Amino acid sequence: MTAERVSSLKTYTASELSTADLLALTARPRINFGSILDTVTPIVENVRRRGDAAVKEYTSRFDGVELSSVCVPIEELEDPELSAESKEAFDIAYDNIKAFHEAQRSAPLEVETMPGVRCRRVTRPIGAVGIYVPGGTAVLPSSTLMMAVPAQIAGCRTVVMATPPRKDGQVTPEVLYCAKKAGVTHVLMAGGAQAVAALAWGTESCPKVDKLLGPGNQYVTAAKMLLQNSEAMVSIDMPAGPSEVLVIADADASPAHVAADLLSQAEHGPDSQVVLVALPGVDLAAVEEEIDCQCNALPRGDVARKALSHSCIVVAKDKAEAAEFSNMYAPEHLIVNVEDAEDWLPLLDNAGSVFLGRWTPESVGDYASGTNHVLPTYGYARMYSGVSLDTFQKKMTVQSLTLEGLRNVGPAVAHMAAVEGLDAHRRAVTMRLGLPN
Amino acid sequence: MTAERVSSLKTYTASELSTADLLALTARPRINFGSILDTVTPIVENVRRRGDAAVKEYTSRFDGVELSSVCVPIEELEDPELSAESKEAFDIAYDNIKAFHEAQRSAPLEVETMPGVRCRRVTRPIGAVGIYVPGGTAVLPSSTLMMAVPAQIAGCRTVVMATPPRKDGQVTPEVLYCAKKAGVTHVLMAGGAQAVAALAWGTESCPKVDKLLGPGNQYVTAAKMLLQNSEAMVSIDMPAGPSEVLVIADADASPAHVAADLLSQAEHGPDSQVVLVALPGVDLAAVEEEIDCQCNALPRGDVARKALSHSCIVVAKDKAEAAEFSNMYAPEHLIVNVEDAEDWLPLLDNAGSVFLGRWTPESVGDYASGTNHVLPTYGYARMYSGVSLDTFQKKMTVQSLTLEGLRNVGPAVAHMAAVEGLDAHRRAVTMRLGLPN
Repeated sequence: MTAERVSSLKTYTASELSTADLLALTARPRINFGSILDTVTPIVENVRRRGDAAVKEYTSRFDGVELSSVCVPIEELEDPELSAESKEAFDIAYDNIKAFHEAQRSAPLEVETMPGVRCRRVTRPIGAVGIYVPGGTAVLPSSTLMMAVPAQIAGCRTVVMATPPRKDGQVTPEVLYCAKKAGVTHVLMAGGAQAVAALAWGTESCPKVDKLLGPGNQYVTAAKMLLQNSEAMVSIDMPAGPSEVLVIADADASPAHVAADLLSQAEHGPDSQVVLVALPGVDLAAVEEEIDCQCNALPRGDVARKALSHSCIVVAKDKAEAAEFSNMYAPEHLIVNVEDAEDWLPLLDNAGSVFLGRWTPESVGDYASGTNHVLPTYGYARMYSGVSLDTFQKKMTVQSLTLEGLRNVGPAVAHMAAVEGLDAHRRAVTMRLGLPN
Repeated sequence: MTAERVSSLKTYTASELSTADLLALTARPRINFGSILDTVTPIVENVRRRGDAAVKEYTSRFDGVELSSVCVPIEELEDPELSAESKEAFDIAYDNIKAFHEAQRSAPLEVETMPGVRCRRVTRPIGAVGIYVPGGTAVLPSSTLMMAVPAQIAGCRTVVMATPPRKDGQVTPEVLYCAKKAGVTHVLMAGGAQAVAALAWGTESCPKVDKLLGPGNQYVTAAKMLLQNSEAMVSIDMPAGPSEVLVIADADASPAHVAADLLSQAEHGPDSQVVLVALPGVDLAAVEEEIDCQCNALPRGDVARKALSHSCIVVAKDKAEAAEFSNMYAPEHLIVNVEDAEDWLPLLDNAGSVFLGRWTPESVGDYASGTNHVLPTYGYARMYSGVSLDTFQKKMTVQSLTLEGLRNVGPAVAHMAAVEGLDAHRRAVTMRLGLPN
């Protein structure tokens, strides 16, 4: 293990920066989707036209795997063999994710807005969803649970999991274990833009889905963006950028824990975004030393080091300034490692998921606390929520009027229709009420 | 008024059609966004670069109006003068919409998934939203209420209403009345792609918004689609196509009411989609005669006639077949004009808004029952919900663990992190628990 010294993190003092400087610090690296779309567009079109044959060709070319079947009903795959310890860990995660997402069921909504005017909202599952579970070198059974469990609770009829096959053409056992447990109905053995296209358009073996979800690399994201604006009639969960964490630490936060949390984001990839917001009294030198020391001991230390090279520390003079910067940044993950963590929550507006207090590392939410780990990145926490039960449902409004109800609301409706010059709208009311046309 | 005869609606018998035929009947007219995007892209780029100056130029060119100011704080606009009757009608609509959308507030969500592992979900308003209210020849104060009222309830700080100015450069009084009442903060006097671009990028006078909402023509829709995939960091409510209704009628439904409901959709525009699903015993000739007769009396009868020329009737043999076709079609508006309307609701999966029973014309939901009229069209009711309070909020998950909680969930987290090869994730847990690394 080389004892390479991590270059000091760039450090800024918030109160010395202009709003424009602060905004610049919150900007994410620009992704050039233009050139990525040039690659992805022909793949998506080819899969649309040629279906399974095209998926097989791309999987051979990009993944080096010759597929015999492209998409199979999950019951055709044998139950995988896992150690008891693995099963127990995934079972705990499953139970916690299920408990938190089941609590998200909407209560029935009904309001009688005027006597005889009954308005309701009812929930229905989205019929068919496609969940993308990244694969290749890394193995991500946790992502399977995060998407399939709420789909299972919602009652989606068809849940197709797309995941790149291993070199031997098999699905990773842990991923398959989680998929079977969480009610996935089909497994599409492919990754990349070709998998996303197969889900969106459907192929001979792959059911066409109504909604596409899941994190992925830039090609996967570009394919999702392309398809949501296409004739494929498909929606997506959210745009996705590299994963990110913002840690707020006070003087009493353990430098070792702060460093560990920053590194656990940094190890995701060289483009991971890592920001430390330090309150007065934080020993920055101690944090940097911990980062350096822990990084050297990590198997993925090289990856983490690259991510850290474009990370920064922002020194805030107080709680308000720290919260304001965090809200401007709108991080995917926000760790609040301070003594009075609970008091911070009302100040926090924009984050995918918040980790409060000394004993809440991001890892717990990544795997098993029960919250979802598919979260808005890239600043999209300003307007997107993470994946939840809602992601797999749609809500229909319903109104039912009695004659009395129509008598009560009808005159206002008829008047507004007249103002808008929509006479047939007016008459649909007046005719029913026997009023003069 | 010419007594022109409406050509008979194309009529199909569901049980005689293959699934492919039925699917073909549910297909919407294809919109060629390629050529529309060619028009819209330079407009959006120009507004991005040149701000207010570009908006002024396009408004002069497309709307024939010379703007002195582009976007103004709403308090700078004088309160409009409206008749008492108009005020009363809009006030009733406001109250009903407010009552139904206030009932949509989420209850606090908290689950202790394991002892000491506390998971919550909290709701926050989206900071700045842009609502597009179509204008020009038609005047749509109802759309202002449908978007501004839930934004007001959500507590969005900035609500910019974009609406094309009248020829005299003013905002239509009814639109302004509704905007002031419902807490709009800024008025952007522009329409089309240039207005959408100003909202997404921000200009000298127009605040940049986080989310763009509202119906509009194909240029508005194309601009929204373009911008949601751009660097503007903006989300949209949903894709939009022409407005549509599907009416299910039984033998006892009044042919006059069925015709009035079909026409109230058809008058929206020549591209409106209108479908009648007739149960056994419906007197189709009587319905067609009513359509013919009522259409001739409508100011917008020519528009309605064009829409009807590509509409159809589907004859269903029973409730199940009718509901199945409706679910396949996934209409924006679904009118269930049958005796046992309430019994149909469990069968209905895909619709923007449902109108149950004899006394519930679509018009009531368009204006004042309390439900929202910004709804998914084009078959997107399969996976999108209409605008609601949720549209103006995002939800953050929050977890807070005690040391006991971390002891309970930590081993599963550490094991899963090891399976995924993410060692820093594992150590963020084991280090806090004092376990060996």
